[in-house]
Amino acid sequence: MSGTAVVAAIRPIPEARYAERLRAAAQATADVGLDALLVGVGPDLRYLTGYQAMALERLTMLVVLPGSSALVVPLLEGPAARAAVGSRVRIVSWEETDDPHALVASLLDEGAAGARRARVAVSDRLWASHLLRLQAALPGSTFSAASGVLRELRMVKDEWEIERLSAAAAAADRVVAAIAAGRLVGRTEADVAREVRERLVDEGHQQAEFAIVASGPNSASPHHDASERVIGAGEPIVLDIGGSLAGYGSDITRTLWVTGGDPAKGPDDEFVRLFGLVREAQAEAASAVRPGLPAQQIDAVARQIIAAGGYGDRFIHRVGHGIGLETHEDPYLVDGNPEPLREGAAFSIEPGIYLDGRYGARIEDIVVCGPSGPIVLNQAPRDLFVVDG
Amino acid sequence: MSGTAVVAAIRPIPEARYAERLRAAAQATADVGLDALLVGVGPDLRYLTGYQAMALERLTMLVVLPGSSALVVPLLEGPAARAAVGSRVRIVSWEETDDPHALVASLLDEGAAGARRARVAVSDRLWASHLLRLQAALPGSTFSAASGVLRELRMVKDEWEIERLSAAAAAADRVVAAIAAGRLVGRTEADVAREVRERLVDEGHQQAEFAIVASGPNSASPHHDASERVIGAGEPIVLDIGGSLAGYGSDITRTLWVTGGDPAKGPDDEFVRLFGLVREAQAEAASAVRPGLPAQQIDAVARQIIAAGGYGDRFIHRVGHGIGLETHEDPYLVDGNPEPLREGAAFSIEPGIYLDGRYGARIEDIVVCGPSGPIVLNQAPRDLFVVDG
Repeated sequence: MSGTAVVAAIRPIPEARYAERLRAAAQATADVGLDALLVGVGPDLRYLTGYQAMALERLTMLVVLPGSSALVVPLLEGPAARAAVGSRVRIVSWEETDDPHALVASLLDEGAAGARRARVAVSDRLWASHLLRLQAALPGSTFSAASGVLRELRMVKDEWEIERLSAAAAAADRVVAAIAAGRLVGRTEADVAREVRERLVDEGHQQAEFAIVASGPNSASPHHDASERVIGAGEPIVLDIGGSLAGYGSDITRTLWVTGGDPAKGPDDEFVRLFGLVREAQAEAASAVRPGLPAQQIDAVARQIIAAGGYGDRFIHRVGHGIGLETHEDPYLVDGNPEPLREGAAFSIEPGIYLDGRYGARIEDIVVCGPSGPIVLNQAPRDLFVVDG
Repeated sequence: MSGTAVVAAIRPIPEARYAERLRAAAQATADVGLDALLVGVGPDLRYLTGYQAMALERLTMLVVLPGSSALVVPLLEGPAARAAVGSRVRIVSWEETDDPHALVASLLDEGAAGARRARVAVSDRLWASHLLRLQAALPGSTFSAASGVLRELRMVKDEWEIERLSAAAAAADRVVAAIAAGRLVGRTEADVAREVRERLVDEGHQQAEFAIVASGPNSASPHHDASERVIGAGEPIVLDIGGSLAGYGSDITRTLWVTGGDPAKGPDDEFVRLFGLVREAQAEAASAVRPGLPAQQIDAVARQIIAAGGYGDRFIHRVGHGIGLETHEDPYLVDGNPEPLREGAAFSIEPGIYLDGRYGARIEDIVVCGPSGPIVLNQAPRDLFVVDG
C-alpha cells in the first residue's frame, strides 16, 4: 500500500470530537481558576481545533475563556482558518497594521471583568516574542504554561489518535526493514539518512523529522544526526528515525551490525553482551507498563537491568517520552516523575548503552498503556540486525 | 546538477565568521545595557554558532554575557554540540534530572553580580514554557526579545548568506519551471503540492516548508495550502512555494493560467487586467529598492499602483518580509515600518490581488538590497504563465 493510500485510509477526526476537546479544555481552564487559555500555532491548537498553520511572526491565537472561545487570525489567513474550524469557533481577524496582542487582551476584557489582572495560561510552544508582547498587553496578569491544563487531556489518546500512532509506527517499521535489507557499507551516514527520509515520506509521513544514522563510534552519541562518515564493515549502526503521519509521531530505534558479508566481522563479545542488556531492559520495561504505575518506575525497571550488568553510568538518558502530536510530550518516563500512567497514554521505551569513542546500542518502541498492560505499536524485530550491508 | 551537488558546491561558513558574529552579538548586548542574551534552539542559535538542533523540551541554550559565552546542552547532546561549535564556545551539559533553567540562572550569577535582577533578552522563538521557567528562576529580572539586539546583525546578510539565498532561489526557480511545464488539469492541488515538495528536495532543499497550490477560487485565499480540489481548465493557479536550502529560505510565487489546451479557456479580461497591475506593482516595488529607503515605502509603491487600478482594498497583505535563516524575519515591508533598508538586507516583494470567491494573483521574488539598487535573486519569468496544463 502506498503512503498516500495509508493516509487516505485513516478515518477523519469527527467535528464532534473537536468540539468535545474544546469543551473539556474550557472546563479544565475554569476548574483550575484560570481566566483564559491562550493557544498559539502548534500541537495544542491542532488538538483543540484541527487547525494547522505555520508558526510565524503574525499572531494566530485561540482564546479559550470559561464561557466562550475565539480564534484570532491574520486577515489573510481567515479563509484557511475558516476551512479548518468551520462554525465550531468564532473567528476574529486582524489587519496588517493592527496590534493583535492588544486584540487578544481586549477579548479577555470581554470575557471577565478585571481581566487586566487575569490568570492566563499560554501554550508551551508559543514563541517568546509573542508571550513577551502578551505580558506587556496584560500588565499585572500572571502567566503559566498551558500544559498545566492540557496535559491531562492530551496524554489520554482517543481512538483516532491511536489509529494515527499505529499507522505511523507501522510505516516506520517498514522503513527500518527496507534500510536493514539494503546496501550500507561504503555509503555515508548522510546518504542513508536521505534514503530514510524519502522512505518515510513514501510511506505516508508528511514530514521526516529526524533520521539518526549513527555508525561505528558515532553510535555512542545518542543524538548524533548523520554525518559524512562512510559506513564500514564490522561496526554497528544505531538507526533512530521518525516523523509525523497524519499529524502523529513515529519514533523507532533499531541497532544493526554490518558485517560486509565477512563472518569474521560480526559483533565482538562486549557488544553482544551490552546489546543483550539493552534488549532485556527494553523488553522488561515495556512489559511493566500498566495504568497507575508511576512513570519513573518504567525508567527504573530498565535502569536496574543495565546497572546490574555493569553499565549503569553508560545509560545517560531517561527511558522514554510521551508521543502524539509532538515527538516529545507528556508523560516523560524519567526518574523524579511519580505521576501514574494513564490508560491511553502513548510513549517511547528506549534504553541504550553508550561507550564513548567505541560504540553504543539502543532499542526503541512506541507503546500505548492499555487497560491491563502494554500495547506495543512497533512490530519490527528487536534483536540485533546482523546484516551484510 | 543534482540537489546534492548544488549543496556540495556551497562554501562552508568559516569558523572565524561564526566567532565574529558571536563577538558582535556580545558587543551589541553590552552596548544596549543588557546583562545577558539567552538564545534557545532556532535560527538565532544557528546564526551565532552554526549549531542546529531540534527544538525540544530539553533546554539547549546559548548564554551570551558581555565577557563570555557558554552553550548549555542536555548531556546526551554534548557530542553533537561539540561537533558543531568546536572550541569556539564553552559547553556546559546537564543531566536528565538536573534543572537546566536554574543552571542558566547560575551562569548569569557568574557573569555579573546581582544577576538575579538582570536585564535579559531571550531569542524570539524560544518556547514560552522555557521563558516562563527562566522568569521563575530569575525573579526580579526583566525580559525582552533578543531581536532587539540581533536583528541589526541578522538583517545584513554576509557573502555566505547571499550565496545560500541565491542557491535556494535558483532551485525554487527550477521547480516553478518544471511544474508549469507539467500536467496540471485533472490533478488535485494536494497532488501537485506533493510534486512541488519532492522537486524542492531533489533540487537540494533540506525541507520543503510550504507548497501553496491555490487553484480557481482558492487563488483568492493568500495563505491557502493545497486541498483535494481538482484543477480544471480555464482557471488560475497561484503557486507559492519554498523551503530551506543549506539553512536559508527560498520563497517564490508565480501565477499560472491553465487552458487545458483550449484557446477559448484563456484568462478573462478582468484577470488580465488585475494580473497586469500585480505585475507592474511587483516590478516597480522591486526597482525602488535601495539602501536608506524606509521599508514602508516599498509597500507604498506597490499599493499605489494597485489602488490606482481600483483594487486597493483587495491587496490585503504587506508587500514583503525579510528572509534568511527564517522564512519570515526582519525587515518587514509594511505600512508603519519607517526603518531604512540596509545594504545586504534580503526580503520578498510580493503584491497580490484577491477577489473573494472568484480568483486572485500574486507574484513574488526574493530581492537583496545592493549598494545602489535591487539584486533580484529569482529569475523565473514573471509574466502570467498561460499553459495547457
